[in-house]
Amino acid sequence: MSTFQDTPLAPSNVLHRVDAKGITTLTLNQPERFNALSEVMLSALQAALNDIAEDEQVRCVVLAANGKAFCAGHDLKQMRANPDKAYYQALFARCGAVMQSIVHLPVPVIAKVQGIATAAGCQLVASCDLAVAASSARFAVSGINVGLFCSTPAVALSRNVARKRAMEMLLTGEFISAAQAAEWGLINRVADDDALDDAVEALAESICAKSAVAVRTGKAMFSRQLTMPLDEAYAFAGETMACNMQAEDVAEGIDAFIAKRKPQWSHR
Amino acid sequence: MSTFQDTPLAPSNVLHRVDAKGITTLTLNQPERFNALSEVMLSALQAALNDIAEDEQVRCVVLAANGKAFCAGHDLKQMRANPDKAYYQALFARCGAVMQSIVHLPVPVIAKVQGIATAAGCQLVASCDLAVAASSARFAVSGINVGLFCSTPAVALSRNVARKRAMEMLLTGEFISAAQAAEWGLINRVADDDALDDAVEALAESICAKSAVAVRTGKAMFSRQLTMPLDEAYAFAGETMACNMQAEDVAEGIDAFIAKRKPQWSHR
Amino acid sequence: MSTFQDTPLAPSNVLHRVDAKGITTLTLNQPERFNALSEVMLSALQAALNDIAEDEQVRCVVLAANGKAFCAGHDLKQMRANPDKAYYQALFARCGAVMQSIVHLPVPVIAKVQGIATAAGCQLVASCDLAVAASSARFAVSGINVGLFCSTPAVALSRNVARKRAMEMLLTGEFISAAQAAEWGLINRVADDDALDDAVEALAESICAKSAVAVRTGKAMFSRQLTMPLDEAYAFAGETMACNMQAEDVAEGIDAFIAKRKPQWSHR
Repeated sequence: MSTFQDTPLAPSNVLHRVDAKGITTLTLNQPERFNALSEVMLSALQAALNDIAEDEQVRCVVLAANGKAFCAGHDLKQMRANPDKAYYQALFARCGAVMQSIVHLPVPVIAKVQGIATAAGCQLVASCDLAVAASSARFAVSGINVGLFCSTPAVALSRNVARKRAMEMLLTGEFISAAQAAEWGLINRVADDDALDDAVEALAESICAKSAVAVRTGKAMFSRQLTMPLDEAYAFAGETMACNMQAEDVAEGIDAFIAKRKPQWSHR
Repeated sequence: MSTFQDTPLAPSNVLHRVDAKGITTLTLNQPERFNALSEVMLSALQAALNDIAEDEQVRCVVLAANGKAFCAGHDLKQMRANPDKAYYQALFARCGAVMQSIVHLPVPVIAKVQGIATAAGCQLVASCDLAVAASSARFAVSGINVGLFCSTPAVALSRNVARKRAMEMLLTGEFISAAQAAEWGLINRVADDDALDDAVEALAESICAKSAVAVRTGKAMFSRQLTMPLDEAYAFAGETMACNMQAEDVAEGIDAFIAKRKPQWSHR
Repeated sequence: MSTFQDTPLAPSNVLHRVDAKGITTLTLNQPERFNALSEVMLSALQAALNDIAEDEQVRCVVLAANGKAFCAGHDLKQMRANPDKAYYQALFARCGAVMQSIVHLPVPVIAKVQGIATAAGCQLVASCDLAVAASSARFAVSGINVGLFCSTPAVALSRNVARKRAMEMLLTGEFISAAQAAEWGLINRVADDDALDDAVEALAESICAKSAVAVRTGKAMFSRQLTMPLDEAYAFAGETMACNMQAEDVAEGIDAFIAKRKPQWSHR
């Protein structure tokens, strides 16, 4: 049985981590393989996300990629070389775990997209809290072109865009432009190719300028309340907000607001 | 313990009610406080909504505001002056009850938005069935700027707009324009500032021109079916529609349609 | 009791079926009655959908209509002639069953819309997986105009477009254009009136050019995962995808992709 439960942690070179000013940038770094989500890449991502989840210095994560592609999804050659069901179950379970680790990370994750984001690469974008793309970036869930419906990407995609649009992408495998992706809600912003760095940095810095308590509170509550019935969501959100009110930062934030000065947050 | 369960009903001047031709207009009237949802304002709103729920003369509600702001959310000074958790729990519970009273009111509620609608003010707009805004109106969930993530507003907002857009507004606290709000589905229509009165009146009158039974049936069924599984939603909607068919108004409506004349509804 | 449980199967002339190159086109053919969903039309649709569900030759269904209207919803005269609740319950149950049969059909259904699609006719469009409309087509849920809130259409509509937009259509009964419907996500594409045939054919053919296993896998999993919690959806999608990987078509698809040649699918 070729499951890969014992795969060693990925060599650090497939995924770079840089920490600066509260922003942790993870960069997919196998450009020659279109940053495919191979076993090693998934392991590297999972390990990095696990570390970040424990790291109170991190305020915001940027998920970026080197090369012409953001991420081309699963590694088709590797999948083809391991033709047994247990392998695939383990692979998709691992991939699903990475995606859910992004959703459940204590801090927001911004996808920074250039080139193509296809199949599980598009799912990666959909799984992030926010996304900014270069105007030349393109998105597709293209598994259908090799006979493999993008079932796991469909989970993330259909929670981002209207269902007929998701279904069209999934059944045709066709690319949509960055502008189209923004119009449909798959990404937040489009930047000129040479302004992508600045656009992402500005967005990440604006999040770092907020109270860490407030940002972490929001990230944790947002996805949880989405699927609750309305009354339950309000009960949960009200309790969350009453707790948030107890934070020093709120006293400071309100005082600063009333005094029309800049707040000084407790945790930097 | 500073909960405010015994707060007397609000003086009538913080919230005006005018009834005309089946349209009940509630107007937030503390412009000097940006119509903040203070204790007294929440009490006044809750009392007015409770009255309307029992009033069979009301066909449609317009929620409006006097002054430069539609509503700036919670009263930060009042919150800061009551720094204990029980107070906040009671406050957010009361606010959530007002929002849910709008959702569960037997008749449609149209938000008429001018100026700014921020934090719980934006939530108020999101909670209404329909919304029309002046073109200069702006929307934000800006609690993050004072260290307080807009958790309860997030509940309403994330049920109106795509999740990455909701998350962007919640994490950045930035304003969006009325045009943007319409494009994202947070509001229905944008009117020139000096045409807002006419636009809201036209929409409210078009609802009053419908059968009261049909409008009340629809308002009650719509939000309830939203979260049901498809088969359950169809069973519920089918039963609702079969009951609606029994109303005199439908016989009259269909006869009028076939005869190409204007229907005469039973309840005016 | 005038339920119509024993209604004989519809005469074939109210609904045409044509099979060509894997595409099954069902054409509503009562143009003089605006292709209303009368008892006979609902029976014909249900029978045709049941047949298609068992037919492995079908790759994709196009739901079209003859005449100036796509479909004007229920047959008001027939409803008015049967004024008892049991009749209506049976009617709406039958209609809901047709709509759910479209959702649960093993292959994708494309609505091809010209003229008007109103009430249950608009619901029919909303229930399809994909929809292409002529630029002159218009959409409304207009029951409110005859005193009957479009409760069952609301189920499908509110799962396609943002809630304030659905509510506006349901409460006002007003038409929206094809362009508006596309912008809101109710339909996928708009074609010039004289290019509608070509646009639908191109979309249907692009689906037929995919692996049948992949298309059927996707159609079945998509709507099912939509309402699941995220972790459950991922578990289900991962298992689905691992099964899909076992199909011959995927081996062929990946080999063809790597070799940069066109794949030869097993089932044509």
